[in-house]
Amino acid sequence: MSGIGLAGAAAIAGIGQTEFSKQSGRSETQLAAEAIRDALADCGLVAADVDGLVSYTIDKVEEVDLVRSIGIQELGFSSRVPYGGGGSMGVLVHAAAAVASGAADVVVGYRALNARSGSRFGGAKTQLSGHTHSGTASSAFCVPMGVITPATWMSLNANRYFHRFGVTNEDCGRAVVATRRYAANNPAAWYYQRPITLDDHQNSRWIIEPTMRLLDCCQETDGAVAVIVTTTERARDLRQAPAVIEAAAMSAIFESEVATDHYRPDLSVMDTTVHLGRKLFGEFEVPREAIGAAMIYDAFSPLLLMQLEALGFCGLGEAKDFIADGNIDIDGRLPVNTNGGLIGEGYIHGLNLVLEAVRQLRGVSYNQVRDIEHVLLTSSRGGAILGAG
Amino acid sequence: MSGIGLAGAAAIAGIGQTEFSKQSGRSETQLAAEAIRDALADCGLVAADVDGLVSYTIDKVEEVDLVRSIGIQELGFSSRVPYGGGGSMGVLVHAAAAVASGAADVVVGYRALNARSGSRFGGAKTQLSGHTHSGTASSAFCVPMGVITPATWMSLNANRYFHRFGVTNEDCGRAVVATRRYAANNPAAWYYQRPITLDDHQNSRWIIEPTMRLLDCCQETDGAVAVIVTTTERARDLRQAPAVIEAAAMSAIFESEVATDHYRPDLSVMDTTVHLGRKLFGEFEVPREAIGAAMIYDAFSPLLLMQLEALGFCGLGEAKDFIADGNIDIDGRLPVNTNGGLIGEGYIHGLNLVLEAVRQLRGVSYNQVRDIEHVLLTSSRGGAILGAG
Repeated sequence: MSGIGLAGAAAIAGIGQTEFSKQSGRSETQLAAEAIRDALADCGLVAADVDGLVSYTIDKVEEVDLVRSIGIQELGFSSRVPYGGGGSMGVLVHAAAAVASGAADVVVGYRALNARSGSRFGGAKTQLSGHTHSGTASSAFCVPMGVITPATWMSLNANRYFHRFGVTNEDCGRAVVATRRYAANNPAAWYYQRPITLDDHQNSRWIIEPTMRLLDCCQETDGAVAVIVTTTERARDLRQAPAVIEAAAMSAIFESEVATDHYRPDLSVMDTTVHLGRKLFGEFEVPREAIGAAMIYDAFSPLLLMQLEALGFCGLGEAKDFIADGNIDIDGRLPVNTNGGLIGEGYIHGLNLVLEAVRQLRGVSYNQVRDIEHVLLTSSRGGAILGAG
Repeated sequence: MSGIGLAGAAAIAGIGQTEFSKQSGRSETQLAAEAIRDALADCGLVAADVDGLVSYTIDKVEEVDLVRSIGIQELGFSSRVPYGGGGSMGVLVHAAAAVASGAADVVVGYRALNARSGSRFGGAKTQLSGHTHSGTASSAFCVPMGVITPATWMSLNANRYFHRFGVTNEDCGRAVVATRRYAANNPAAWYYQRPITLDDHQNSRWIIEPTMRLLDCCQETDGAVAVIVTTTERARDLRQAPAVIEAAAMSAIFESEVATDHYRPDLSVMDTTVHLGRKLFGEFEVPREAIGAAMIYDAFSPLLLMQLEALGFCGLGEAKDFIADGNIDIDGRLPVNTNGGLIGEGYIHGLNLVLEAVRQLRGVSYNQVRDIEHVLLTSSRGGAILGAG
């Protein structure tokens, strides 16, 4: 019965964000506060209405500082989702569980980071961290082999995926061209008005040959986003049409790691995401065919292809053809990352994808999909289906 | 309606622990795994039944390592409670919310630490940490003034409390004598068979004059504890009588900090705990009179007195008389910390208090309270009421 109870009880009532930049010039606490105030204004609530806060374990902004900065009066629930981007959709699971269970009424989910001007997110980790949530045990086998950046972690799986199914970097390039086309229409995107051709993609330098070029990698971004989650009933009385959390689930399986699946039997399939899809489509009521758009955690473009397959939107090895046939474009079967994704819009650690899903359901995306009723969100280890309220 | 939905839907089905020592001789991951396996065996479940994990943000044990070590197959929920001991009862809130909302079926709450043989917990923090959850902003005003240990943090509030109500260190000593008497009967307690007199207490050296002597301070302990939370319905089919989570709430208010309330208008009252009590007793159905025993986070003995008052078990300034009159003893109105508390049993960061509450409801405490139906748990910023199932 896991997950079933979450269905439909909670909704996203408000969304907010700062600008996405390479140099915010202010603290992460300030960025978080701005995004949260923006999200509250979006739905017509005030700080005193908030009684829950949810973020990532590795988000640097302190709850007590937010309470003070924003003017929250009484907090009844706070939680952190373990690990990074893979956990980003876990924010919706925590918030929905808190609201559905009655532990809180109005929960703010947020993520703030200076991932370019501060500690660069994609940089090399050459020392094993002694800190919590660092995946130290599994890193211990990678780091001495030079697997020291997020790109190299992912490349182990991507390489096997390429080999098994005959996927090439050009196949990934087609996905990037499609999402950069969306970004070019989105004024909030870093790559606004800067679409690329497949040639541009193929001429960018290798990061990890043969799987990833520079343009396959997401950005390092300064900025913050926030979402306001409350009961669907209360959301209906607020300023915006609610985006109902029709399904939400987290996923971690035996022998998986923080962000990778190096120890699973088959590196070419994202098993954790297969498990996630089983929960989202097996235990809830919305079928794959009803999904009008998907927001997929594209830290690196091969992950976009692999998640499409793991979630069953196409067969194993078929994502390259699915994309080449135009299915992820605006008039395709499943428009993907219509904000430009983490590669085109910016990297707020995945949570900015949730905002685009909400815009789609409100009908206000810069790349609006017509007649859309349900949007799928996946961060490989967490996911949700949002529906028009 | 915050918190109401939690009432009664979830229960603690199993409890487990390692030995409490000063030198465990093994890793925190190992300790956590042992405690969790013990808790599963206690209620007759196996690792494959577990689909949720909850701990503290500052617990060093990684979810992925536990999944691998214990043999969990599919995890659908994981979360971390921000901050330390104050958040310990938040573990029950997260677990109950996950179960009550249907996000998970069987949630393990755990805490593992080598707080004596590893990084000593009560030590001085002379550098401002750049890490998350360190309370850096508020510490910035304390540390330069020499307020660099947990004992000094708490002493600011305790000093004002002593001054306002004429409380003395001897008053705190009476609480310690009572809880050490409980510890002396508890084979798992560090101070098993070592009761103290008030003279012993008064002859121990000052840590922070005039509020805290050595024997007012909790221990630094190596060890781990775990609880298994599932639906009350499922718990009824398992090996042990369920301890129903009748109420559970977290609390943080404007201008409070991670573990202290230095910036609240009145330092002599634990405002955050007042708010917690309002939730537990105002929004749920169990009245104060029905509470048969209380487990109170006694990192330092003044906190025991101040929480008794903040929760309304006696009036402001009256805890010293409440204790002197024998009310927290085994035959008193409200036996407190019948395991010996964090001062007498050990300091597993507050979560070991939950195990004693469960033992009381099962009727198997070494200091068993007769005819007990409800136990209150408080960690000042989180709390719960457990009831016999």
